Amino acid sequence: VSRLSLNLITVDQWSLEEAVAGCAAAGIEWIAPWRHQLDGRSAEAIREAGLRVSSLCRGGFFATAPPGDNERAVEEAAELGTDVLVLVCGPLLDRDLRTARATIARGIEALAPHAEAYGVRLGIEPLHPMLLSERSAIVTLGEALDLAERLDVGVIVDAYHVFWDPDVEEQIGRAGGRILGFHVSDWVTPAGDVVASRALMGDGLIDLARLQRAVEAAGYDGPIEVEVISEALRALPGEEVVRAVVERFAKMQS
Amino acid sequence: VSRLSLNLITVDQWSLEEAVAGCAAAGIEWIAPWRHQLDGRSAEAIREAGLRVSSLCRGGFFATAPPGDNERAVEEAAELGTDVLVLVCGPLLDRDLRTARATIARGIEALAPHAEAYGVRLGIEPLHPMLLSERSAIVTLGEALDLAERLDVGVIVDAYHVFWDPDVEEQIGRAGGRILGFHVSDWVTPAGDVVASRALMGDGLIDLARLQRAVEAAGYDGPIEVEVISEALRALPGEEVVRAVVERFAKMQS
Repeated sequence: VSRLSLNLITVDQWSLEEAVAGCAAAGIEWIAPWRHQLDGRSAEAIREAGLRVSSLCRGGFFATAPPGDNERAVEEAAELGTDVLVLVCGPLLDRDLRTARATIARGIEALAPHAEAYGVRLGIEPLHPMLLSERSAIVTLGEALDLAERLDVGVIVDAYHVFWDPDVEEQIGRAGGRILGFHVSDWVTPAGDVVASRALMGDGLIDLARLQRAVEAAGYDGPIEVEVISEALRALPGEEVVRAVVERFAKMQS
Repeated sequence: VSRLSLNLITVDQWSLEEAVAGCAAAGIEWIAPWRHQLDGRSAEAIREAGLRVSSLCRGGFFATAPPGDNERAVEEAAELGTDVLVLVCGPLLDRDLRTARATIARGIEALAPHAEAYGVRLGIEPLHPMLLSERSAIVTLGEALDLAERLDVGVIVDAYHVFWDPDVEEQIGRAGGRILGFHVSDWVTPAGDVVASRALMGDGLIDLARLQRAVEAAGYDGPIEVEVISEALRALPGEEVVRAVVERFAKMQS
């Protein structure tokens, strides 16, 4: 399980301190915190526990983010010792998808020099199309790569968000060295709430092993983030979630 | 509103007889019934009311449909006097998307000669990717067209299912004469339940006018089906739903 990174939204019932202690106790070596979980002492606490940070979630929301906020996210990533800032690029706010997507492109372009100055790579994460009006107007890996190639940034491949795409394996192959992260969880039926109904790996219909092979064939060999946004998991004690994550991850890698 | 066709799932609180009477009273000229709404007298009742049938919903579900069931759907379409059978091709049942999609292709191929013999055209309707494991493993118009071109059948463009796709206008252009139907409703936020949370045209984020222009530029000038699968609408009296549909449709066309 040395490649397992726990994306801390999975255990958002915990404070960052509790999550750091819980991961260290479970033998997890990597974590990926969200910005709302951070305070001034987080970087030190993570380092002291011997953990590494695979990515910071998240920058983006380019149509609505306060001025300077994405720049601060870049700086926070650097301070945490990760070179990956995940971008959730922001939802469709009205009927004008073209403008929404152009706003996102301009936002990334404006942020890129700051990220480069801090040694942080920007990873555009395409989200499932059902989250178009909730989270992200970038909804396919192909579209994310069109942007990433043009702006010379990276992409994040989250299995839950892209597995449905008939074109996904071809696009993963195209992505090659631009893949800055691979996220896993699972898709269950009935799908329930569009935001927080993900499941642990193995409980659903995503062929995670196949997607992992594709991502690895494209050259990605970094941490694999387990990111399970789930009301059900949030209702459990964090220790129990961590135990299940480690077990499922080990099974997925065997 | 002479192009308005009411897809009768929108008023599923009504029997077919009630829906026929309600549509005729509202000046609607076209309807699209679902198979579960039909009985042996339906074709005659529709004809007697002076209504025409734009399509029959639905054939498909190729992995699970009982033998002969899709052939019967073709015959029912012919009996209703429509030459369009909408295909909802069936969900992903396990982790094997490739096999699910191959099963669908074989199913359509096997059904096509029967449809041709009855003068019925098969329309593959790609459904929103969030319905992959509930309804349809065919989730993009591009994928539907790959199949439709290979098997020489048609496609259905439902705005709700395809509007998110960065490639949708290009694919509509590619579809040309294969477009056998254009369905409208709207996408609201929060998205709620993945199956039955559609909204009336104008209440959400879909640029329906733009999609209609694209479909018309591709050559489609047939009926436009209003298909609003919505728990909220089903709780209203059918007359009220029909009134709102006619009003919204007229506004959409103005």
